[in-house]
Amino acid sequence: MSKGRILSIQSHVAFGYVGGKAAVFPLQCLGYDVDVVNTVNFSNHSGYGRFGGSRASAAELSQIFGIMEQNVLLHPERLLTGYIPGGEALSAITEIARKLRNRNPHLVYLLDPVLGDAGKLYVSPDVIPIYRGMLPLSTIITPNWFEVEVLTDVKIVDVSSLQRALKTLHEEYHVPNVVISSIPLRKWLLESLPPHLQPPAGYRDSDTDFLLCIASSSDSPLKGDSLSAVHTRYIPCIPGYFSGVGDLFSALVLAHYEPSTSPSASVNGSTDPGTEETTLSRAVSQALTKTHAILSLTHEYAAALPEEDRQPTDEELDVKEPERLVRRMKGRELKLVQGQDIIRNEAAVDHKNMDWWVKFWKP
Amino acid sequence: MSKGRILSIQSHVAFGYVGGKAAVFPLQCLGYDVDVVNTVNFSNHSGYGRFGGSRASAAELSQIFGIMEQNVLLHPERLLTGYIPGGEALSAITEIARKLRNRNPHLVYLLDPVLGDAGKLYVSPDVIPIYRGMLPLSTIITPNWFEVEVLTDVKIVDVSSLQRALKTLHEEYHVPNVVISSIPLRKWLLESLPPHLQPPAGYRDSDTDFLLCIASSSDSPLKGDSLSAVHTRYIPCIPGYFSGVGDLFSALVLAHYEPSTSPSASVNGSTDPGTEETTLSRAVSQALTKTHAILSLTHEYAAALPEEDRQPTDEELDVKEPERLVRRMKGRELKLVQGQDIIRNEAAVDHKNMDWWVKFWKP
Repeated sequence: MSKGRILSIQSHVAFGYVGGKAAVFPLQCLGYDVDVVNTVNFSNHSGYGRFGGSRASAAELSQIFGIMEQNVLLHPERLLTGYIPGGEALSAITEIARKLRNRNPHLVYLLDPVLGDAGKLYVSPDVIPIYRGMLPLSTIITPNWFEVEVLTDVKIVDVSSLQRALKTLHEEYHVPNVVISSIPLRKWLLESLPPHLQPPAGYRDSDTDFLLCIASSSDSPLKGDSLSAVHTRYIPCIPGYFSGVGDLFSALVLAHYEPSTSPSASVNGSTDPGTEETTLSRAVSQALTKTHAILSLTHEYAAALPEEDRQPTDEELDVKEPERLVRRMKGRELKLVQGQDIIRNEAAVDHKNMDWWVKFWKP
Repeated sequence: MSKGRILSIQSHVAFGYVGGKAAVFPLQCLGYDVDVVNTVNFSNHSGYGRFGGSRASAAELSQIFGIMEQNVLLHPERLLTGYIPGGEALSAITEIARKLRNRNPHLVYLLDPVLGDAGKLYVSPDVIPIYRGMLPLSTIITPNWFEVEVLTDVKIVDVSSLQRALKTLHEEYHVPNVVISSIPLRKWLLESLPPHLQPPAGYRDSDTDFLLCIASSSDSPLKGDSLSAVHTRYIPCIPGYFSGVGDLFSALVLAHYEPSTSPSASVNGSTDPGTEETTLSRAVSQALTKTHAILSLTHEYAAALPEEDRQPTDEELDVKEPERLVRRMKGRELKLVQGQDIIRNEAAVDHKNMDWWVKFWKP
């Protein structure tokens, strides 16, 4: 049942499930030995308003990697990097990623470029060029729409700008597999989707908001003579903000990415002849399905809490009463332990399949 | 499937399975939400010869606990403390243990007094009095025989000195549940055991070495008018040294300690009327069974490695060739991920039951 070894470089919080706490347990449940390097050691995630602890300096990180290298412990089959605070630490980790990539061309490296969300940066701008420098080392990246905009300098407002952004990532930054973890399903995007990829009309006319997940694999037989095989899936928004969802999703994409599942396997991806799937779309389908199921479970738990623990998001009230925010955050911590059967494929959940957007490149 | 919340305060290593890496995953598999505070962040365990990283200072630990307290995140049902380097950090953690104990008399606190093994201290002597001061806060302690000697100042050479040591822990330090995780089954101990608690003669006459696990619960109806209910189980030694075994064992004892499993449940333990079990003996039976099964699995893996990765322990050769030690240590990392079905009770394993040593106190 051993799936090999993953080196995970992420933030650590004592309480709750973000960064490594959201990624490592699922990876272990799925059979991976995980080497865990903590970029920070905090009490809880920053969403609580109050948080504290220490950041690992670039020197501390380099020392840990240096000893691991001397002890011949730096030979993972896979690499996962998430939130890394500050340029120096990020540079130290870029070195490691480059070393592992040079050492093993078959390394599967999932880079989650954690920069910000919904138009807000939450890292210092000096890390952006460093992330751009890391992109060519990656096998898969899992930015949200805002992080795509920041990395590519392309504002995504229509299909052609979306194409430009993906083209930039595939061709300029040589990223073989791009997963836009979420982008709001606005009118322009909805209307550009082929009907069978759109939410059912009735469902849609309700005031449910939707997000779209987009996977673009540039090394797949599906693509024909176009640039990449693009798959998408809409997901209904679950109200309220939940932390660690992206970290869980990225870990699950990496865990389920199986280049070897097809005879025509290549280093970075492949397709089963005769199917409309790619190695990437299969992995993202699994990750999306499980992440959404865990999120739904978490939402159910949160909804069952006493009223004072499930106050709606309201930043003004939060400022007046910090405890209000704290209680809400605590109530929304991911139910990973309670949902471990979902992660292990031992629970029946609604499958979210990523379907091929055949004419994405030639509407 | 939620079993409640455990605060685990232990060492962290990036590679391999000791401290928190040996304890947290099993606890999560068994349904506990685990809050993880890292006392050190090292590359790998010290057995590799080369290791590095940073220790959390008392100030860093206090800051993390301080913020958790402000955020009302310090209300676990259970507490697990393991290796803590240095007196200052230990004092900071004693404060937290005292706070949690005062806050919740039902807190189940498993204290693993990690001091040393086989006659060697591997902490600075100044922590010993601090550990003695922590003992009255605990629900269960899991020292090895050497740690019992250090804590009680009693050299264990016969049954009466063993009785004295246990008496000291129960009566002087008010520890309700003492588990001596392992003590070599020497002649004096073997011959003092009732026949049905001894290894079968044929088995014994072979050159197999045995360890004895001893559980002593001082708040149990079994004890009649004697001091405690004592249960034991012999375990055949698995050749070679494996790290993290004690950390795994302690975590499993805590995970399986269920005061509520009996109507006559007390805070610290209880017994099913009519059985010869205690809450403690049930938990230790489970922990011993699973720890031994994981260890056997690990030993099988290690035995299947290429010869250069399974060199026998030989400190002289290790000094001449450090890589030899490193390869051996790597080959002996616990197979926790591969053995997760064992932890989850989903694998058939040889049950190691802790049996009642009826006349322990009155031979």
